Amino acid sequence: MPGPDEAAVAAVRRRDAELTKPAGALGRLEQIAEWVAAWSASPKPRVDRPLVAIFATAHGVTKQGVSAFPDSVNRQMLENFAAGGAAVNQLCVANDIGLKVFDLAIDVPTPDITVEDAMDEPGCAATIAFGMEAIVGADLLCLGEMGIGNTTIAAAVHYGLYGGAATDWVGPGTGVDADGVRRKAEVVERAVARAGGPGGDPLEILRRVGGREIAAITGAILAARLQRVPVLLDGYVVTAAAAVLHALDPSALDHCLAAHRSAEPAHGRVLDRIGKRPLLDLGMRLGEASGAALACGIVRNALAVHNGMATFEQASVSRKG
Amino acid sequence: MPGPDEAAVAAVRRRDAELTKPAGALGRLEQIAEWVAAWSASPKPRVDRPLVAIFATAHGVTKQGVSAFPDSVNRQMLENFAAGGAAVNQLCVANDIGLKVFDLAIDVPTPDITVEDAMDEPGCAATIAFGMEAIVGADLLCLGEMGIGNTTIAAAVHYGLYGGAATDWVGPGTGVDADGVRRKAEVVERAVARAGGPGGDPLEILRRVGGREIAAITGAILAARLQRVPVLLDGYVVTAAAAVLHALDPSALDHCLAAHRSAEPAHGRVLDRIGKRPLLDLGMRLGEASGAALACGIVRNALAVHNGMATFEQASVSRKG
Repeated sequence: MPGPDEAAVAAVRRRDAELTKPAGALGRLEQIAEWVAAWSASPKPRVDRPLVAIFATAHGVTKQGVSAFPDSVNRQMLENFAAGGAAVNQLCVANDIGLKVFDLAIDVPTPDITVEDAMDEPGCAATIAFGMEAIVGADLLCLGEMGIGNTTIAAAVHYGLYGGAATDWVGPGTGVDADGVRRKAEVVERAVARAGGPGGDPLEILRRVGGREIAAITGAILAARLQRVPVLLDGYVVTAAAAVLHALDPSALDHCLAAHRSAEPAHGRVLDRIGKRPLLDLGMRLGEASGAALACGIVRNALAVHNGMATFEQASVSRKG
Repeated sequence: MPGPDEAAVAAVRRRDAELTKPAGALGRLEQIAEWVAAWSASPKPRVDRPLVAIFATAHGVTKQGVSAFPDSVNRQMLENFAAGGAAVNQLCVANDIGLKVFDLAIDVPTPDITVEDAMDEPGCAATIAFGMEAIVGADLLCLGEMGIGNTTIAAAVHYGLYGGAATDWVGPGTGVDADGVRRKAEVVERAVARAGGPGGDPLEILRRVGGREIAAITGAILAARLQRVPVLLDGYVVTAAAAVLHALDPSALDHCLAAHRSAEPAHGRVLDRIGKRPLLDLGMRLGEASGAALACGIVRNALAVHNGMATFEQASVSRKG
């Protein structure tokens, strides 16, 4: 996998040191400019074609009563995205971001993971490959998902990877009550036990207790690295894909930033495990790349500042005495 | 002072409950829409004419060696703002925000506050009044400042209001070293002792150890409340003005949000005192309304989502079961 472009980072640092501000005074905005330079291999980092990519699918595990919303919402939300009515549509318009929604057989739910594997091996490999193909042309990738039941799927992947107690990894999702959260924990426990318990091979965990959107996002993260596209990770479900890659190779996420910390209680725990400090912490828990789209605005602001500011010399401003 | 428009807040909550997302799933974005509605008295909250207002002046206390930059930077930065070369210029362009810079006699520093009062009573009152006049026409006000030495001035105001130790309220500012920070604490201690010690009348603290930009920002915050304009507070120096008002009446800041938590170490302490949880925490410490301009983008995103999303009925999406 390609590493960071150190020459591009050095160029950004050289320019940053000349800009009319105290050194370091823009904090993470400066680090964002370095990050885009590093992973787009560009000494003059730009984001002209950011893309929100949403991977959507359906989950048989909803039979276990793990979601507050019915399965019918899956197709309805695809239509809502197409008609421009969802939250992420507004965020994409406001921040001038392209939007693609990938329908991963939304009318054909994966099997209930408490009973059988989510995907067979060819299906899982094909879905990862699909995700790898999906991102062509973007210069910043905001990864998101939609699928009723998928915080349970994500919790199963996290519990499978990290162990501990199943209750550590479940939360209210779209808004189940305390009974629902207990039910989710029990479902996650059973699904992971069926698949051999926590701590096995990361890709097998993905295949057996994950879902198609998580598999596709895993592929998209990998493809972005190979194509030198920086990635903004959205919330709890997207980090399940990231966590699978991180378990295989901790450097696999070096081109990714965590857009935000979700209100889903376990998200912060996953971010700690994958070593990411989120850009935003606004109590959001919607998914559909909403946090990543918001963070894309911050990234563009960071680049506007880096590229547009005058230097001390240009502005005839005195330096630190 | 006008209170929140509860009918406008109720209208926003009614609409929010109809939007195609789980209740509460947009976290603080939902609260931002309510906040704009409450303080602009609008059931359909909009921000069409946001304004960054920067108040700039000079401080005699720089004679005490409290800043890393020379006084000559004050005028140079005004010229940099005028030429479009500063960080905040890029943020205003990127987020479509108007920018006004108010020159509060930048070539005539206030007296050194360790020796005499920053302002006499008529001067302080006139500067507050100037700030009150400055904000006409905006529908969201992003308040910022520029002035070499003014983190020392702000620290003196905070120490004057809150007491404790002078060292609690000083930090590196634009980048002084540990010796410089010690010098700032000693200067703050001396200035506040000269003015009668911590805990006196808030407006007298402002007048005696504050500065013109802090006085003007105090006026701008007040005028915004009277004119029903929501306010985004920038960093450490702006919160000194807010803290003066808060000490006079804790409800005086109800129309203000803290845009961000500055890297200046005492800023979080002030935010706790004035009861504000910042929107952003990106390690910024530049001033010139940079944090407020960035947060303005978040506010606009929040309103775009609230105003643009489809309802469950419009999109034929099923509700929570």
